[in-house]
Amino acid sequence: MLISPPMLAKIEVTLKNGVLDPQGKAALGALRDLGYEEALDVKIGKLVEIRLDGVSESEADRRVREMCDKLLANTVIENYKFTLTPQ
Amino acid sequence: MLISPPMLAKIEVTLKNGVLDPQGKAALGALRDLGYEEALDVKIGKLVEIRLDGVSESEADRRVREMCDKLLANTVIENYKFTLTPQ
Repeated sequence: MLISPPMLAKIEVTLKNGVLDPQGKAALGALRDLGYEEALDVKIGKLVEIRLDGVSESEADRRVREMCDKLLANTVIENYKFTLTPQ
Repeated sequence: MLISPPMLAKIEVTLKNGVLDPQGKAALGALRDLGYEEALDVKIGKLVEIRLDGVSESEADRRVREMCDKLLANTVIENYKFTLTPQ
């Protein structure tokens, strides 16, 4: 039996292009008010880190994709991408 | 005069170890309810992407650090790290 090492899935969830990002707009406004005029645009997304155990890397890849589609991202308005790193 | 290319700052803001993460706990509970028993732990952080223009890379490094300290992260409970990529 092959023992799979624990893994860390690092998932970036970002708004799709064209979707309104009020949180990003607010951060941009605040940065410019603070004098950071080099800031042209701010986008705010989510970073989800999941520690996984007992699954192979290929299984983890499939199941993390499922987790994103079902729960972690709203695929109507959000994109996601992730990496898997053995721990 | 040296023209600096536009840059993308990609900032990861995460809760420090030991800080309660109710959003992560809720996501973990939901994943396990959905049958993802390989999920041991979930942490949820923020991903901030800033497009910058008109600053050199070393200046951008210093100023993005400042933006994080002043506005984007709460350094009492959050860590941040970032990368700068010429666009």
